[in-house]
Amino acid sequence: MTLLAPNNPRLWYFHGGNVGQFAVRQIVPVVGAPLPTVTHLEVSQSCPDSDASAGFVLKGVVSHERYSTRQEKSGLVAVQQTLGRDLCTGGAFIPIKKSPQWWALSQDERRAIFEDRSAHIHLGMRALPAVARRLHHCRDLEEDAPFDFLTWFDFSPEQQQVFDDLLGALRATEEWRYVIREVEVRVART
Amino acid sequence: MTLLAPNNPRLWYFHGGNVGQFAVRQIVPVVGAPLPTVTHLEVSQSCPDSDASAGFVLKGVVSHERYSTRQEKSGLVAVQQTLGRDLCTGGAFIPIKKSPQWWALSQDERRAIFEDRSAHIHLGMRALPAVARRLHHCRDLEEDAPFDFLTWFDFSPEQQQVFDDLLGALRATEEWRYVIREVEVRVART
Repeated sequence: MTLLAPNNPRLWYFHGGNVGQFAVRQIVPVVGAPLPTVTHLEVSQSCPDSDASAGFVLKGVVSHERYSTRQEKSGLVAVQQTLGRDLCTGGAFIPIKKSPQWWALSQDERRAIFEDRSAHIHLGMRALPAVARRLHHCRDLEEDAPFDFLTWFDFSPEQQQVFDDLLGALRATEEWRYVIREVEVRVART
Repeated sequence: MTLLAPNNPRLWYFHGGNVGQFAVRQIVPVVGAPLPTVTHLEVSQSCPDSDASAGFVLKGVVSHERYSTRQEKSGLVAVQQTLGRDLCTGGAFIPIKKSPQWWALSQDERRAIFEDRSAHIHLGMRALPAVARRLHHCRDLEEDAPFDFLTWFDFSPEQQQVFDDLLGALRATEEWRYVIREVEVRVART
C-alpha cells in the first residue's frame, strides 16, 4: 500500500481493509448504520491511496479540548498514558455521530450534559492509566463526514474489563441519548 | 468560472481574484503575512475550479458555537440579521489565526478571556442589527489551514462607523493578544 505524505500533522486515518497493524476481532454496530466487515485496521497519518483494499477510510483531526476545565485537564494530563505501550495489544476504534439537537445546544448546555450530569471526564479518569486514548474530530472537515468523532483506545488484554466498564458507563449517560450512530471496532495488534 | 457542486452544505469559499460579486476596496495586513492583492472577492458554497483567476482561495465551515451560553445565544438570535440585505452593500472579510498558546488553554480559560475579560459577545451585540455576520471555522479542516477563522460581515455604507468601532474595540481586548495573523479585506457589492 502506497502512502501519501500528510499535510496536516494533526490528521489521522483509520483504514479498514485486508492489511494493517491491527487484526479486527469484532465490529459491533451499536447505534445506526454499521461499517463494512474487514479483517484489518491500519492507523496512520498518511492517506491510503486509491489502490488500498476496499472497506472504509475514516479520518479525523486532533484538536483542542472543548469542555474540560484547567483543573480537569491537569488531572488528566498527570495520569494519562501514550498509545502504543508494549503490553497494550488490545484496542478499540469507536466512531460516533451526535444528533442535530446536540449541536444546536449552547456551550453551557452541552457542558452541563457532558460533565455535570454525565460525568464524561470523571468516568474517563477512572479508566486511567489502564486505557490510553486519542480523540479525533470530523465534524468540521471540508467534506461532510459520516461521523463527528473517532476515538482510538488501547489497553493490555488483562485490563479489558476496565475498558468494557468505561463503555458501559458512558452509554448509560444522558450525553449518549444524543448519539445517533456508533460503531465499536475491537482489534488486536498483530 | 466553473463551479463544482458542494459536498458539505456548511462549507463556504472566499475566492480573491479578478471576478466576483464584490469589488475589493482595500486589503490591510493587520498582523502577520498579508494576502495577495486582488480586485474582486467571490463568496460561494461551490469550490472554484483550478482555472479560476489567481489570488487566494480560503475556505471554512459554519459550526456550532464554542463559547456562548443559552442566554447569550438567545439574545444574539433575537437581534441578528441575515447577510445580503438590500442596503448592505458594504462588507468585510477578516481571516484570523490564533497562537498555539490560545489553543493550549482549557475551555474555561478560553471562555474567561473571550467573554469575561474581553466581552467579545457583548461588543458584537452592540453592533447589532447594523452589522450581519457569519463565522467559519478552518482549524479542523483536513488540510492544514493558513487561518483558524474566517468572518464575513455586511452592513450599509451609512453604518460603517458601527463596524469600525466594533473592530477597534475587539482589537484592544486581551483576546486579541492571541491573534498572530489577521487580514482585513474591505469590499463593496458590485
